[in-house]
This record gives sequence, C-alpha cells and structure tokens, in this order.
Amino acid sequence: MKDHSDFYIPTYQDMLDAHERIKPHIHRTPVLTSEYLDNLTGAKLFFKCENFQKAGAFKVRGASNAVFGLSDDAAKNGVCTHSSGNHALSLSYAAGRRGIPCNVVMPRTAPQAKKDAVKGYGGIITECEPSTTSRETVFAGVQAETGGDFVHPYNDPRVVAGQGTCSKELMEQMKEDHGGDLDMVVAPIGGGGMISGTCLTLSNIAPDVQIIAAEPEQADDAYRSFKAGHIIADDAPVTVADGLKVPLKDLTWHFVSNHVSEIFTATEQEIIDAMKLTWQRMKIVMEPSCAVPLAVIIKNKDFFKGKRVGVIVTGGNVDLDKLPWMQG
Amino acid sequence: MKDHSDFYIPTYQDMLDAHERIKPHIHRTPVLTSEYLDNLTGAKLFFKCENFQKAGAFKVRGASNAVFGLSDDAAKNGVCTHSSGNHALSLSYAAGRRGIPCNVVMPRTAPQAKKDAVKGYGGIITECEPSTTSRETVFAGVQAETGGDFVHPYNDPRVVAGQGTCSKELMEQMKEDHGGDLDMVVAPIGGGGMISGTCLTLSNIAPDVQIIAAEPEQADDAYRSFKAGHIIADDAPVTVADGLKVPLKDLTWHFVSNHVSEIFTATEQEIIDAMKLTWQRMKIVMEPSCAVPLAVIIKNKDFFKGKRVGVIVTGGNVDLDKLPWMQG
Repeated sequence: MKDHSDFYIPTYQDMLDAHERIKPHIHRTPVLTSEYLDNLTGAKLFFKCENFQKAGAFKVRGASNAVFGLSDDAAKNGVCTHSSGNHALSLSYAAGRRGIPCNVVMPRTAPQAKKDAVKGYGGIITECEPSTTSRETVFAGVQAETGGDFVHPYNDPRVVAGQGTCSKELMEQMKEDHGGDLDMVVAPIGGGGMISGTCLTLSNIAPDVQIIAAEPEQADDAYRSFKAGHIIADDAPVTVADGLKVPLKDLTWHFVSNHVSEIFTATEQEIIDAMKLTWQRMKIVMEPSCAVPLAVIIKNKDFFKGKRVGVIVTGGNVDLDKLPWMQG
Repeated sequence: MKDHSDFYIPTYQDMLDAHERIKPHIHRTPVLTSEYLDNLTGAKLFFKCENFQKAGAFKVRGASNAVFGLSDDAAKNGVCTHSSGNHALSLSYAAGRRGIPCNVVMPRTAPQAKKDAVKGYGGIITECEPSTTSRETVFAGVQAETGGDFVHPYNDPRVVAGQGTCSKELMEQMKEDHGGDLDMVVAPIGGGGMISGTCLTLSNIAPDVQIIAAEPEQADDAYRSFKAGHIIADDAPVTVADGLKVPLKDLTWHFVSNHVSEIFTATEQEIIDAMKLTWQRMKIVMEPSCAVPLAVIIKNKDFFKGKRVGVIVTGGNVDLDKLPWMQG
C-alpha cells in the first residue's frame, strides 16, 4: 500500500509552510487553565483546546495541509484514507472545502457521531472490521478503485507537518498570554501524528521543553516500542480511548524514538475518571483519548509537580448518548 | 423577610464599582462563536461563556460584589441566602475567599453536583421543599438564627450591579475581537438578576441594543408578567431548566418592565435539544437553563435572522450522571 512517507522527514520549514497554508481553514484554538486541576496535580497546566478546532479535532491541521498542498492535477481524483474517526472527519472537511471527493474506510465500531459527521462533510464511508489487518485490506480496495491520493492519518510528512502547527501556536500563546515558556508538553499517543508534529516543532523552537506521551495501558504498543527500541504493533487493542488504537509507523517512530522523553500509561478507569473530571471542572466536552494526558499527570504527580505543563486536548467528537461513565 | 432591595435601584456607577471590586475574584470569560450554529439560525451568534466562570456560573459576579462590599462589621456574622443552586455555590465561593461563614437554603431536589460543590466551598446547607413558599419559610428561620447578611439571589441591587459586569465585558470583547457591536442580547430569565444587570449596563452604554429574555414555557411567569404589566408568580413550576424556576421580584421587575424588548419561551424538548446541540457542536458543558436562549433563537428564526446576537451562557454546573437526553 503506497503512502507518502517513503521516508521523507518533514522539516521545520515544512511546518511553517503548513501553517500559512492551513490558516484560512482552522481555528487558533484557546489555551485554558484550571485552578482546581492545578491544585489537584501540583503542576501548572495549560490546556491547548483542539476540541474547539474545526471538525472537532487537531487532525484538521494535517488533513488540510495535505489537501491544500495538492496540485490541481493530483487533486482531481480526490483523497482517500482509513481512520478510526477524527482524521476521517477532518479529511472530509478539508476535501469539502476544496471541492474534491473524499473516500474513507472506518471501523464499523466507530462512534455513530463520527460517522454522521463524516457524511455531513460529504465524505463517502466504506466500513471495515475494527482491526488493523481488516482496515488495511479494505482500504487497498477503495484506493485502487478511486485512484484518490492517500492521506495516511499520521504516517505522512504532510500530516506530521500540519500537526506541528498546534505546538507552534501553543508556544506563541504561552508567551502572549501566560507569562512565558513551558517545561514540558504532554500529548496522547496512538499512531503518533500529534506527538511527531510536537517533536518536529519543539525540537526546533524550544528544544529544552520535554515531550511526554500518554497512552492507554490497554493499547500500550508505543510504550512497549519505546522501551524495546523498535516498533511493536498490536492488531486490535481494546480501549475507551478509541482514537489511540492504531500503531506507530516508520515516520512517527522516527520522531518518537529521537525526541520523546517519556511515555506514561493509564488504565481505562483512570482515563474515564480524568475525562469526567475535566467535563465537571473545565466545562469542556472532550473525547476519552484526550483525557489520557490528565490521567497520567494525576497518576505521576511527583514527575509533574511544580512544572509548567502544556496539555494537548486533541478532540471533542464524543457520542453524547454513550458516555463511558454511564455504561455498565 | 428583610432584603436589600427596599427599592434602591443600582446605578451605572454601582456597576462600574462592582467590576473593580470583583475583578480579582472572577474570570473574564471568553466569547465563542460557532459557524455551524450561525448557518443553522441565520444569525451571527456570540456566546459569552459564563459556564467557564469561577464557581461555574455568572452568579459569582453578584455574590462577590455583595460579599466584598460589606464592611468588616457587617461581615462578622457572614452571609446567608436561598438558591436553587448557582447562587448558593457562588456565595459560598465568595464568602470562602473572604473567610466569613455562608448559610444557604437549597431545595432538596437541587442537583447533587451543586450541593456537593456548595459544601466543597465551605457553604452550610439547610434543605427545603422545592417551592417558593417552603424556601422562604425555611430561610427566615436560618436568617434569624445566624444573623447573617441576606444576599438575595437576584432582588438585591448589589447582585444586579454585579451581574451587569457580564454585559460590560461582552461589549468590550465585541469591540476588541469581533469587529463591533451587537443588535441584541439574549439571556435566560428566572428571577431576572442577569437580565436586570444586562438592562442596567446596556441602557447606559449601548441603548440601541435590544434585550431579549428567554424562558421555559413550563415556568413562564416572566412572560405572563411582561404581557400583563404586573408581576405574576408561580409557586412551584416544573422544568428541566432548574435555575429558572424562581419568580420576578420588585427590583428585577423594574428592569424587565422598563428595558426588555421581548420575552420568548421554549418547550422542555426544545431546551434539551438546544442543550445537546451546543455540547455536540461547541464542545462546551452548559446547564439546561442556558440552552433556553439558543432554543428560542432556533424557534424564532425570522426574528433573529441577519442579526448580531449576544447569547449569555449562564452556567455549566450540570449533574453529569443525569443528563436530560438520557432520561426516560
């Protein structure tokens, strides 16, 4: 299956170009703070709220960069991808704005709210089983049939460069509104697109800021890869953090292995508790995936104590009829 | 029962003084927009997000103004009040910051999340039945026993002056970040504290801005009062918008009858639908009470079409275990 990694590592200039290219299509999302959560954790937390982003998640950054970077000729057959949800939404949104078709392969178990939103943006869905193997097989058929440009959800230099714009904004906003720099940034890790973009940007503009990844214990392939020194992939992990089930690939592994300081994991209950706490205290709707950073901060208080910590809240596309603390 | 209205009508200067007094104790909450909701309604909506306010609601403005305006002598017995929820929270928060006791009478049916939060801020709760009659009887006993200064949830010039600071900020933020003025402001109406503060401020700084009140059809005493030309009070209305069950009083009636342009009502289902839609699309947690403005805007599209409309999102203290679209 052809993708755009082929091992081109995006540069700092690629990220700057991406930001100029996507600015008309994204929000500069706010940075929120919570006195309650600061008191609870002993850290000073700055939440970069990509749940308020267009299409409801940071993924619109990378998707828009890929879509609007295509030549007219390359764009004529549209784009295609596979995604557990937010990348599908974001690519559909970006393709819709450019007026080109977007085909997406989604697991049949993806939240209904995400499927509805993809259709709302004009995306065409083909369903697969919720495993990496099934997803890749079904997708190969769709790609062959449509001839669309494959925008991988994370293993694509255009996508990584786009995701890197989030940390660029965060660091600018820290200086403008929050009195200076950060000691570390924590982001969830699934396939590693957001973390890789964070590494790309911070290793250039703020190399002293530590980059911490947060992962569900039940989908801890990045953690095990990090400890082993090579990629270990699970086929079908089960976690409430449905955006974080996919494995690292060559491009994201490059950034993770070179720039990430630490990976922490959290249990399902810790993730759900952190999610509910954020809704209660910060009054924001966010997905289980973006509660993983707060869960690991609460779990590892000594590590984060006294630090100024950026937290990437990656998305807010949750099924309001199936909230995890109301099941079972 | 003695309160502080005695018919002193707060002035514009009182509101300015209130803002200086309470600034250290409140957030300047953000103004959010939603392209989706603009397209849906045909209006341009600017949401003043008091769900992000300290103690989770705008009521902290009025409560802080009352608490921090007391002389040391007047403050020695603390403060007391009755409230269906957010005023109780806010007064407890403000009293806690000043280090004086706070006694609150709450209906036993108030959301558990609000009762817990009152206790978390150090407030002392006495429960009553969920009717105006019971609330006032129980409260008279508590006031006599404690000798605390009565801070009425809305029929108090200090409270109205405090709530007026919300529209002052909104109008400032419109000029700074959103390219100018508004045509109208819509706020929910229960006892009328927020609407009265809005009237106080806008009639001075922006007299051309129409002030619209939004009320649950099942607790439409303000609507009926407005049409009749005198206060009509219900004893125990039933609505999902639990912050809006209380009746107008002399001071708030003064502002409503002199400055409100229109009162619209919405059904329970319309309120719940608007609430869920806001959570889905804006990714913010807000109470049923603050969904009433959006519900009436969706219901009366012709009235709001093409207008620049400020919408006061009054609070976000909702019981996450009892969401209204998941009942029944």
